[in-house]
Amino acid sequence: MVKSTLKISVPGFLANGVSVGIKGGDQKDLGLIYSTVPAKVAALFTKNTFKAAPVLIDAERVKRGIAQAIITNSGCANAATGKEGMVDALAVSSAAARQLKIPEEHLLVCSTGVIGKRLPVKKIENGIGKLVKGLNELGIEDAEAAMMTTDKYPKIAIRKGIVGAKDITICGIAKGAGMIEPNMATLLTYVMTDALIDAKALNTVFHQVIDSTFNAISVDGCMSTNDTAIILANGLAGNNPLERAQARLQRFREMLTDVLSELSCAVVKDGEGATKFITIVVDGAKSKSDARRVAYAVANSNLVKTAFFGEDPNWGRIIAAIGSSGIPLEKEKISLSIGNMTVFSQDSPANISLSKLKEIFQGGKIDIRVGLGGGDKSYSVCTSDLSYDYVKINADYST
Amino acid sequence: MVKSTLKISVPGFLANGVSVGIKGGDQKDLGLIYSTVPAKVAALFTKNTFKAAPVLIDAERVKRGIAQAIITNSGCANAATGKEGMVDALAVSSAAARQLKIPEEHLLVCSTGVIGKRLPVKKIENGIGKLVKGLNELGIEDAEAAMMTTDKYPKIAIRKGIVGAKDITICGIAKGAGMIEPNMATLLTYVMTDALIDAKALNTVFHQVIDSTFNAISVDGCMSTNDTAIILANGLAGNNPLERAQARLQRFREMLTDVLSELSCAVVKDGEGATKFITIVVDGAKSKSDARRVAYAVANSNLVKTAFFGEDPNWGRIIAAIGSSGIPLEKEKISLSIGNMTVFSQDSPANISLSKLKEIFQGGKIDIRVGLGGGDKSYSVCTSDLSYDYVKINADYST
Repeated sequence: MVKSTLKISVPGFLANGVSVGIKGGDQKDLGLIYSTVPAKVAALFTKNTFKAAPVLIDAERVKRGIAQAIITNSGCANAATGKEGMVDALAVSSAAARQLKIPEEHLLVCSTGVIGKRLPVKKIENGIGKLVKGLNELGIEDAEAAMMTTDKYPKIAIRKGIVGAKDITICGIAKGAGMIEPNMATLLTYVMTDALIDAKALNTVFHQVIDSTFNAISVDGCMSTNDTAIILANGLAGNNPLERAQARLQRFREMLTDVLSELSCAVVKDGEGATKFITIVVDGAKSKSDARRVAYAVANSNLVKTAFFGEDPNWGRIIAAIGSSGIPLEKEKISLSIGNMTVFSQDSPANISLSKLKEIFQGGKIDIRVGLGGGDKSYSVCTSDLSYDYVKINADYST
Repeated sequence: MVKSTLKISVPGFLANGVSVGIKGGDQKDLGLIYSTVPAKVAALFTKNTFKAAPVLIDAERVKRGIAQAIITNSGCANAATGKEGMVDALAVSSAAARQLKIPEEHLLVCSTGVIGKRLPVKKIENGIGKLVKGLNELGIEDAEAAMMTTDKYPKIAIRKGIVGAKDITICGIAKGAGMIEPNMATLLTYVMTDALIDAKALNTVFHQVIDSTFNAISVDGCMSTNDTAIILANGLAGNNPLERAQARLQRFREMLTDVLSELSCAVVKDGEGATKFITIVVDGAKSKSDARRVAYAVANSNLVKTAFFGEDPNWGRIIAAIGSSGIPLEKEKISLSIGNMTVFSQDSPANISLSKLKEIFQGGKIDIRVGLGGGDKSYSVCTSDLSYDYVKINADYST
């Protein structure tokens, strides 16, 4: 498996990103990913009640199992926009499908940005010609740039490897830096691969891998109206087909996990205003769901997150967060380690050096391990700290 | 009913607050409230798994229904301190009861401050003599000062009125500015009254009133290990006894609600770094629990709270928070009003002036109303915004 950052391309995929004036200035805000042949598709969407218009459209379209292109705008989420929002999204879809000369139901539409604003359809329609004309093999980076909002840097991961006797490529792009919450994909993540894979296997593997990557991170515990994760597999690698329960499917799963792990970690590192990368592992739980609740109680505690930002070794806040998770816990069996130091076990604080603990808090990467001592289930989640910049970035977003 | 801030005192109650060097400098950090006669007591405690040692002690003692004094230190929570923490709390209890010449089981002990640190018992023991000697009728403000941590200002509320044919007084004091979460009392709240009231009635009324006041606020969604609310009723007013289902008990409930409303609103206004006071009313819910979940989904959303801090009329974040509450909602029936403006209804944004909405965001007090259109249950919660100062205060608390 070779990680290459030299040439970001996937056989049979073209892409592009242009500026049409939604975000202002010459910032790219309209992106397109296009497979030269119809591809198998699998997708996950936000569970928010107020799903954006494009999410509602895509959720229907991916049921057919086939898609060929994804058009994305940033700067406007087209969410909480009612019937007009649906009309707007369909207008974009219709114009793009016509230009691409593909059936409209093979096109997916995505939007990200401010909620509650009408989509500037005219600007998008006027830009689609330029967008389609500029499609090229090396356009993935431009497509990625066009979906960034508060992201500080682009998020692209690519892996190449031999699967089913052929070289295959998996490339993922993601945008997202806030409104990052479990129980969904993330803001936007697209994966392109030339692997030949059975539709059911693709769907199963994609759900499994999202669950262990994008569904195991947290920036602020807020769930967006637009979160979408899509994988397109165009089969052009001509490998022995990947189906369920094969060793070669397992190899594909590993490569996909690699790509999505890299992207989900990049989202946490780019968490709005983040200065720390914090991993929380909870083990010894009676159920995975219990472990998950404890992990997120710690990950989403503003008091824990501000202590990490301030490099204040105030481990008691982690204990308070564990205790507030609302599940039955035997406190005598609970242990808490930060980095390589056990700070609490057997219902008592360990005899530790606070200055050594402070050194751990001063690092950029911090590992927290919570042992519940009540079972053999575990869960792991990555999160960031809560900084002045989080407040700054989010205090003045829409205007 | 007369609100007086001139003379903060309750017949039969003495109080005091002194500095014993826990917080450093000459800050008051040890407080005492004492009833000259044994009083009826009712109390609520945190539901955190890691209840602090004093919470465990008090929860046992209040079962007897009688208490006479509350000793409180700030600067150290004596939580997550194991068996030693229990020994420390009992040492303080024993020393204070001896000095006060009351049975130890009639004394309640409370601590607030950093979690995981041993209680400086010697400092406290050395200060108890001075603390008890200085007990006086006008000492409530000093006792309150001694329990402040990150609080910017003291929180005292008092009401006098005729109940059961006699003048009675109800006075409450509270500390708390962060780690404020539903499902518990608050950090520390003590109520003193000279009303003569039946023990069962006192318990019922106190739970009811806490539920509609301190259990309906949120600053950061974090639950402490030490939250405690206690009411002492010494009966010295000699009123006709208050029992269940009487008009005069209703009058007492109203006065108590007034006192605790004033205190709980003061806690929100003093929310760490708060610049806004936000009330969220959710109605039209199928159940109170549904209404509550939606209200807290909005109240605890960092993205909503930062938008209010930034006075950014980004109402879409409130819609996203409502939609993420995880309960079944009919989105066509949901309406959202901010101040006097309906911004969203019938699954569509209203045609509003964003500049007028911004004016509402610029006010210090903001009312949000969410209609779910699915039933007749409602819930109301007060919260604050999320500011730079919240991060600043909490980034460097323990060191």
